[in-house]
Amino acid sequence: MNLVHLDEIRAAADILAGVVVRTPLLPQPWADPARPLLLKPESLQPVGAFKLRGAYHAIATLPDDARKAGVVTHSSGNHGRAVAYAAATFGIPAVVVIPDVAPPTKIEAVRALGAEVVLVPGAERTDATDRIAAERGMTVVPPFDHPAVIAGQGTVGLEILADADVDLVLVQVGGGGLASGVGTAVKTLSPTTAVYGVEPAVAPDARDSLAAGRLVPYPDEQRYSTVADGMRTGLSELTLAHLTAYLDGIVTVAEDEIRAAVGVLARDANLVAEPSGATTLAAYLYHGDELPSGRTVAVVSGGNLDPVQLASLIAP
Amino acid sequence: MNLVHLDEIRAAADILAGVVVRTPLLPQPWADPARPLLLKPESLQPVGAFKLRGAYHAIATLPDDARKAGVVTHSSGNHGRAVAYAAATFGIPAVVVIPDVAPPTKIEAVRALGAEVVLVPGAERTDATDRIAAERGMTVVPPFDHPAVIAGQGTVGLEILADADVDLVLVQVGGGGLASGVGTAVKTLSPTTAVYGVEPAVAPDARDSLAAGRLVPYPDEQRYSTVADGMRTGLSELTLAHLTAYLDGIVTVAEDEIRAAVGVLARDANLVAEPSGATTLAAYLYHGDELPSGRTVAVVSGGNLDPVQLASLIAP
Repeated sequence: MNLVHLDEIRAAADILAGVVVRTPLLPQPWADPARPLLLKPESLQPVGAFKLRGAYHAIATLPDDARKAGVVTHSSGNHGRAVAYAAATFGIPAVVVIPDVAPPTKIEAVRALGAEVVLVPGAERTDATDRIAAERGMTVVPPFDHPAVIAGQGTVGLEILADADVDLVLVQVGGGGLASGVGTAVKTLSPTTAVYGVEPAVAPDARDSLAAGRLVPYPDEQRYSTVADGMRTGLSELTLAHLTAYLDGIVTVAEDEIRAAVGVLARDANLVAEPSGATTLAAYLYHGDELPSGRTVAVVSGGNLDPVQLASLIAP
Repeated sequence: MNLVHLDEIRAAADILAGVVVRTPLLPQPWADPARPLLLKPESLQPVGAFKLRGAYHAIATLPDDARKAGVVTHSSGNHGRAVAYAAATFGIPAVVVIPDVAPPTKIEAVRALGAEVVLVPGAERTDATDRIAAERGMTVVPPFDHPAVIAGQGTVGLEILADADVDLVLVQVGGGGLASGVGTAVKTLSPTTAVYGVEPAVAPDARDSLAAGRLVPYPDEQRYSTVADGMRTGLSELTLAHLTAYLDGIVTVAEDEIRAAVGVLARDANLVAEPSGATTLAAYLYHGDELPSGRTVAVVSGGNLDPVQLASLIAP
């Protein structure tokens, strides 16, 4: 299988300049001095998550004719917002297919960015997406299973290394697009920097897939039981291949650890993070004995969560 | 009166490189398209506020012997943290004088950064600071009434202009150090960019002082009635002179507007801001008719607030 190459990530960085926010590394004085902590707040992107990098890059690298015809995706979360925002930037039509049980606030967030929302029963979302693509001549922009998406997410890794010498990078593993891109960039440029994936302990399909050398999917019931709603997806063959090549390890975090880390980010780092975004800090805080020491970067992948949930998680 | 010169702010920027976070401008897709909004999140500095810029620069520019003898200041808030953090960076002793009625969390935050805390009755804090300085040969680092502090804060303005062409900059006015520095940098480099100060309507001493052409102080009772606890200070002659030279206007914001803006920042921008930090967004959201239109930067000056207060302010 062809893996994404560093050159493709560098090219993506050129395309994304001025579109995504060049997020800084934020030093945290309260962290363990033996493991100085820097946060990479992708939660501050215009759509509140790193997803804009991959979605914009995938759309930008379409042939002109295809791009003009528009794009479609299915996602009730950050990828849907990212596709909507990127499409609006290009002035092209976008359709986001969302399960009809999604919270109204999520649907409204996508609409506010200018995309057409199509509500379907959850089980039909893939078929509906393909049908719309065929009927309207639109291109499907997948959330992670695409080289251009992985290359876009990999720019997070380029930025980390440009800003600091680091011993360890902690990155979320949901579908694996972000971890694939970051792993490729970091391990190619700095082989001595460790890259660890983080996933919820209730459905550690990346851990098991890496151990088995093949995809080990978890049933929906388990995947959907995590509060980290951006990480309920399993790997693809493409992302598993990248993670196999580049990750130094996987750490799994418990649900109460994820919730606690959301509170720490708000109180001590002044960042609003969604549960998925806080999983890397949970690994840092509660699983330090499983990790290399030294200067650590934790990617805070996103910050979109329900205000009621936020208020309850940050209560001291 | 000698005003701080752009060259001093540029020199401060060189000194602060690698010490303070180079905060990005964060575009907000939900903003009024006629007034695109960019946030400058100084709340993400290591001490949670812009104050680190001025405090570090003031200490860095002391003569070597004076610096080695240490520094002292009085502040229960962000300036105290900033002096403690900066002194620790230099490995010099620091004393922070804090009123004995301050919340334990604020006292602990300063101690955790390595400074010695001296608790005194509120009315004695200035005298106590001067006495410690005399007894120990320490230098007092004032929170705003000093050219080196103003020059340090002015680096916020340099960064804004380096990152974007902007029509309007909204900046907090408490003691006026930040607004003096930002005003100097922005109006010197880009005279057509408007710079507006923002202060709480319950004690608008900057508005009245600028109108009168002299300091118009407000009584403690009024100054301390604002929720924006970082803005309870009045101007000095030095900061009034800068604001007179550089500000295009002042907007005052109501207490409920400040509280609401804290919630908007958390829910829509993924930023935890203290009430003072949210005053500029309050001006943008609720006083647009008093402001020039066009691309607007709102400085989010700090993010340190009590977790209980945060939880109550962000509840939807």
